[in-house]
Amino acid sequence: MKKVALVGAGVSKFGVRKATYRDLIWEAGKACFDSVPGLKPKDVEGLVVGSVMPERTAFQSHISSLAAEALGIKPTALSARTEHMCASGTVGIRYAYAFIASGLADLVMVLGVEKLNQPSGDEAILNMGTGVDREWEAAFGLTAPPCFALAAQRHMAQYGTTEEQLARVGVKNHNHAAKNPNAHFSKGATLDQVLCSKMIATPLRLFMCSPITDGAAAVLVASEERARTLTDTPVWIRGTGQALDGFQLTSLHDDYAHWPAMKRAADAAYAMAGVGPTDVDLAEVHDCFAIAELIAYEELGFCKKGEAGRFVAAGRSDYGGDVVVNPRGGLIGCGHPLGATGVAQAAEVFAQLRDEAGPRQVANADIGLTHNNSGMGEHVVMIYGREAT
Amino acid sequence: MKKVALVGAGVSKFGVRKATYRDLIWEAGKACFDSVPGLKPKDVEGLVVGSVMPERTAFQSHISSLAAEALGIKPTALSARTEHMCASGTVGIRYAYAFIASGLADLVMVLGVEKLNQPSGDEAILNMGTGVDREWEAAFGLTAPPCFALAAQRHMAQYGTTEEQLARVGVKNHNHAAKNPNAHFSKGATLDQVLCSKMIATPLRLFMCSPITDGAAAVLVASEERARTLTDTPVWIRGTGQALDGFQLTSLHDDYAHWPAMKRAADAAYAMAGVGPTDVDLAEVHDCFAIAELIAYEELGFCKKGEAGRFVAAGRSDYGGDVVVNPRGGLIGCGHPLGATGVAQAAEVFAQLRDEAGPRQVANADIGLTHNNSGMGEHVVMIYGREAT
Repeated sequence: MKKVALVGAGVSKFGVRKATYRDLIWEAGKACFDSVPGLKPKDVEGLVVGSVMPERTAFQSHISSLAAEALGIKPTALSARTEHMCASGTVGIRYAYAFIASGLADLVMVLGVEKLNQPSGDEAILNMGTGVDREWEAAFGLTAPPCFALAAQRHMAQYGTTEEQLARVGVKNHNHAAKNPNAHFSKGATLDQVLCSKMIATPLRLFMCSPITDGAAAVLVASEERARTLTDTPVWIRGTGQALDGFQLTSLHDDYAHWPAMKRAADAAYAMAGVGPTDVDLAEVHDCFAIAELIAYEELGFCKKGEAGRFVAAGRSDYGGDVVVNPRGGLIGCGHPLGATGVAQAAEVFAQLRDEAGPRQVANADIGLTHNNSGMGEHVVMIYGREAT
Repeated sequence: MKKVALVGAGVSKFGVRKATYRDLIWEAGKACFDSVPGLKPKDVEGLVVGSVMPERTAFQSHISSLAAEALGIKPTALSARTEHMCASGTVGIRYAYAFIASGLADLVMVLGVEKLNQPSGDEAILNMGTGVDREWEAAFGLTAPPCFALAAQRHMAQYGTTEEQLARVGVKNHNHAAKNPNAHFSKGATLDQVLCSKMIATPLRLFMCSPITDGAAAVLVASEERARTLTDTPVWIRGTGQALDGFQLTSLHDDYAHWPAMKRAADAAYAMAGVGPTDVDLAEVHDCFAIAELIAYEELGFCKKGEAGRFVAAGRSDYGGDVVVNPRGGLIGCGHPLGATGVAQAAEVFAQLRDEAGPRQVANADIGLTHNNSGMGEHVVMIYGREAT
């Protein structure tokens, strides 16, 4: 299997944007091309676009072809859109990775994009219901917030996790986002603000939840040979894993505070990368809700089961701690434009492992991890390194 | 790069079905599992689903997870939906192919599914408009039928292709479908019936167009090692190619009767497979409209540019001719449930290269080709062989 690296990355401004799908694609695509001096769209052999619901928000399928044309790319090896709800972007990176690892392509752009606030944020909340089982769950109101609230309730009951500990995730990620010019939110947050924010699904309050965000992100993925010609500082894909426990809530682990598929996905990625949890310097984890970040600490092996609340409260997932989690602000602070999220996570790791993250820079970052979920039972993990294996 | 083969295949009944998405998934998935005695869902390491618009027709994203759960598959290596409009299924096969060729997985199911007639066929016709550029084309009525009609007009003007020659494609494919118990149409068609059918977009008449169809299809894709344990008669993926000229009509070749991206995709696949057009015994080509099949003869190299009308009229694309094109009935006779089409094409080649196609069997079929397009400027080609390279 060939070695594969990221050689470029770019991210649009995230937020409630007036921009169209095409505008967002242009913004992230141009930023990505600008990160690789001299590279032209015609040099790129393929484009994979992670996007969930352009059919609903823009009455538009076929978004990878629209994006290729918008960016001047004429794919000669591959072109596709990938959708796996909130994990669509990372699933797209894996498509490009497999093509390059097998020798079928040498240089592919992966772009994630979502324009959720169209026609309105209220409609977006309805549209997000397409991500769970419509016939057996969404139709009865069991959308994402109540599902993750059940996990939070269980974690609190079983391990004594507190509302304040959940709120600490919101504080950290809002404060990280304040250092990220592309983030949806820029003001940071105090513990009081998080704990006094509106209740969404008990115990998850507004500042513990990711918002409805528009945005796009892009990375360039290359074979070792091509990477060496494009940059002196490629960021290597060292490992990847994906696993699924189930789609419907009733098919998951009986104890909603345990997400075994995440552990299996992480273990596969760690084994492939030849590293373990203590080697990870920064992690972009899928904090769609604060409880998801806490459980991620446990399933990714950063702390033992049940200790995540104390882990965040002690600052062990922040700068100066064991591992910096969500330096760009995570989904809570940076926003969660579904298909764009996994690609934006990769773009952050790319910047961090090249010492290009400015005020967000994690010192001596050699290994970065990204985790994307599309529900409590469905997880994908990537591990990147400053050095190849 | 590892060798990769199809080891199983199954197709649902195509047509205007009362079945739900989940029903169609069950029907094709079960048929596919039944084709590999002893195989259990837990043996499959991944699932890729090609599907275009469940968001519009069933208010459902995340269809690969829904399908995995419906079929009892718990992906340990990969899970994703692929969308590339009418080529979504073949793009899904390529996802699985790359994962297996690179050594990241050994056994993956690819399932294509579309439930278009929901809530109604009329709504489906509107929904199909999401496949072209909404802002600059669909909004002005430039959907698929008028686009392909322009290509037909040009081919007639430039090469003297006749309405009767176009109709011959409809006759052949409707008559092939009559031998396919899973096809949408079962009655066959005479030249008079095709030539007297309703005009859709001049010169394309109803029986020269693919219908609005519900259906699903599945194939199992395996590494050489795994394939050898599952069957004595694997069907090998010998080559693949994908290319794009453009998305908007205005960005295509000036002469709409030339589709150079199809030739590039085919040339890449032929080179990889080590075969040429004269080696192809049967071809499943994307006859969304009769003109598309004629131009495919030319771009795939079965005949010279401009000769396709005479090629079909002389029976050279039928049983006993140079190459049997669309033995299962093509999109015109079998139907075109978008995401399912590319996978159903592969399932037909699988059956033909194992001498399991019953009354549709092409004699001495060693090499089969599938061609899927998602517009006049976007093409993907696969080449399969009874023997590995």
